[in-house]
Amino acid sequence: MNIVVFGGGMIGRAIALDLVQDKGCRVTVADVSKRTLDFFRNRRNIGTLKADLTSPPEIQKAIEGHELVIGALPGEIGFNCIKSCLEAGKHVVDICFSPEDPFLLDQLAKEKGVICLVDFGLAPGCSNLLLGHLMATMNQLYHFECHVGGLPLKRQEPWEYKAPFSPSDVLQEYIRPARFVEKGEVVTLPALSRPEIVHFPEVGPLESFLTDGLRTMLRVRHQVPSMVEKTCRYPGYRERILLLRDSGFLNQNPVQIKSGTIRPIDLTLQLLSSIWKLEPGEEDLTVMRVTGQGLDKKGREVNRTWVLFDCYDKESGTSSMARTTGYTCSAALRLITSRRFTTPGVSPPETVGQDPECFNFIMRELKKRNIDVKESTEVVSFQK
Amino acid sequence: MNIVVFGGGMIGRAIALDLVQDKGCRVTVADVSKRTLDFFRNRRNIGTLKADLTSPPEIQKAIEGHELVIGALPGEIGFNCIKSCLEAGKHVVDICFSPEDPFLLDQLAKEKGVICLVDFGLAPGCSNLLLGHLMATMNQLYHFECHVGGLPLKRQEPWEYKAPFSPSDVLQEYIRPARFVEKGEVVTLPALSRPEIVHFPEVGPLESFLTDGLRTMLRVRHQVPSMVEKTCRYPGYRERILLLRDSGFLNQNPVQIKSGTIRPIDLTLQLLSSIWKLEPGEEDLTVMRVTGQGLDKKGREVNRTWVLFDCYDKESGTSSMARTTGYTCSAALRLITSRRFTTPGVSPPETVGQDPECFNFIMRELKKRNIDVKESTEVVSFQK
Repeated sequence: MNIVVFGGGMIGRAIALDLVQDKGCRVTVADVSKRTLDFFRNRRNIGTLKADLTSPPEIQKAIEGHELVIGALPGEIGFNCIKSCLEAGKHVVDICFSPEDPFLLDQLAKEKGVICLVDFGLAPGCSNLLLGHLMATMNQLYHFECHVGGLPLKRQEPWEYKAPFSPSDVLQEYIRPARFVEKGEVVTLPALSRPEIVHFPEVGPLESFLTDGLRTMLRVRHQVPSMVEKTCRYPGYRERILLLRDSGFLNQNPVQIKSGTIRPIDLTLQLLSSIWKLEPGEEDLTVMRVTGQGLDKKGREVNRTWVLFDCYDKESGTSSMARTTGYTCSAALRLITSRRFTTPGVSPPETVGQDPECFNFIMRELKKRNIDVKESTEVVSFQK
Repeated sequence: MNIVVFGGGMIGRAIALDLVQDKGCRVTVADVSKRTLDFFRNRRNIGTLKADLTSPPEIQKAIEGHELVIGALPGEIGFNCIKSCLEAGKHVVDICFSPEDPFLLDQLAKEKGVICLVDFGLAPGCSNLLLGHLMATMNQLYHFECHVGGLPLKRQEPWEYKAPFSPSDVLQEYIRPARFVEKGEVVTLPALSRPEIVHFPEVGPLESFLTDGLRTMLRVRHQVPSMVEKTCRYPGYRERILLLRDSGFLNQNPVQIKSGTIRPIDLTLQLLSSIWKLEPGEEDLTVMRVTGQGLDKKGREVNRTWVLFDCYDKESGTSSMARTTGYTCSAALRLITSRRFTTPGVSPPETVGQDPECFNFIMRELKKRNIDVKESTEVVSFQK
């Protein structure tokens, strides 16, 4: 099996290294940065290709001879790249988290008879799988919520934050309006709204706030009338981002200054990218809590909760965010190669998660890699 | 008497309007901005001149026919401008607060036989006058401290701050290392060091921190072995500035971004200038507390304190910072025109304040304009 991984950053790297453990699997990593590709030199069964993946001809060249594509690019360039792959008749597992609606590609994927699994990271990703699983295993789901965050283990002022994936995508989380579901309707508020303190025993109190993380899950709002996703950070971080945003430092429109014209976000990205960079060997951690409230198959009102707490892997030098995101993605790819999932078209994880075999397969794959998503159920009341 | 005011901003304006109250006084306001000058149209005894005061020929033209010059320009262009005025043999009262040492001009002023009064604002300015007065009226001065701040009356998130003078000079206060005096030696720390909560009954707790406000006062460190000046802001402000500074947004060196090269401070100044702008009619307030500790003429150990609390003047629409800074400056000019002060060369307020007549004159002038600096003395112990 020949697979090409688009993007050799922290997460693409974890995926490539995981996939080549499989018998008969050969991986090519394509990236625009020679420095990024240098990491893979002399790795068994991993080839590299320097390619500008914003250029259709270079995409064409990169996918030649590969049956499957993993999209692990920054969001802003992901969508068009994935589209080109589908046009070329390749199966795709995508974790670019582009702003565009992936269902715009559904018709194309169906016509080509290929599978396009989108948003198969941690959250979106695992969280959506759990939503699908809840939908399939309960009589009724009233409310779904997800609190999730990737954080550095060591808290360093002033930010107490490191970006575990593309810093431009991190900043986009604070700019893009956040959509959530109330009474079956999509409600939109500015990102960072509705701050709430949440407690994770392993890290203490965190501050959470709305970000636009539901994405494809918004489509099931008629079955699940209340849904919300919040991002978790060490307390105080939200105010710092608000300070930047309210002062104009996240503005995407050009501003005139004496030396010329500049988009403030470009400078902010440049400055924060270096401050937010995880140092080599720097440990990160990931927390996620997903809760579904509703009636179970026995008609009882229950709260079902899954909690994930994951750490940097010192042995392989893999960040926790790369582990939790990348291994969900590589497991999704194995759904295709093992023919557990065969439906052509665009499928998000909440669809895949409704199939017990697919759901259990991914959970088992994560557990094998020491990513344990602990489930608990609280019975609130028995229905008459 | 013909006076030219260089700079028609908030403070230059207050000075010009104050000076033309005097019999026989004619004022010209010179500024590069036509919009700034429009304010003075049809004001009795005030002429205007559009001039780029970074250009020596335009400075020459502006001072022609005037006996005295007031420097009320942003710090970065002040020094050279003042120098040109002295070269042309004009008396100068300067509140540009330029980074350069004003004593570099002492020889020049003496050669020309002209008076150059520097740093005659509030702090530096009034605070220095009080230091001079303390030095003249006490047997020994152990310690001198000044806490001072200009703040908006209405606290608006996220900054709870408006710049009552040139925003570029405000930002420089946070960049320029802060010098203070310990055991008779000059000590330098980064600006914003040594945070301390101070209480002003009229505004509640404020946060204060080191800024480079002692300036010329550093020269008397052998007579006053401990001296410190701190800037006061509403609590939380310091952390916000530190966030910007530590993230690189106050950096003065160019940074490469995708659209070109930019000095981060230039963008920051552009963005904050508009957010920090006092709206027309917006009320500000000024607080200052100056304390001298030492032995009085009777040999008692005393703490002598002066407290100033001043507000926006609704009637004339004059900001409190313009009142306290501008009226100290205009009073200093009257020291020259009334021949109370006649010494050629550069003189800072701590020198002038040692002359009881000059000191009392300025305090009386401020009081006439409802700026009351309340003095109190606490006797700590009687010396044996």
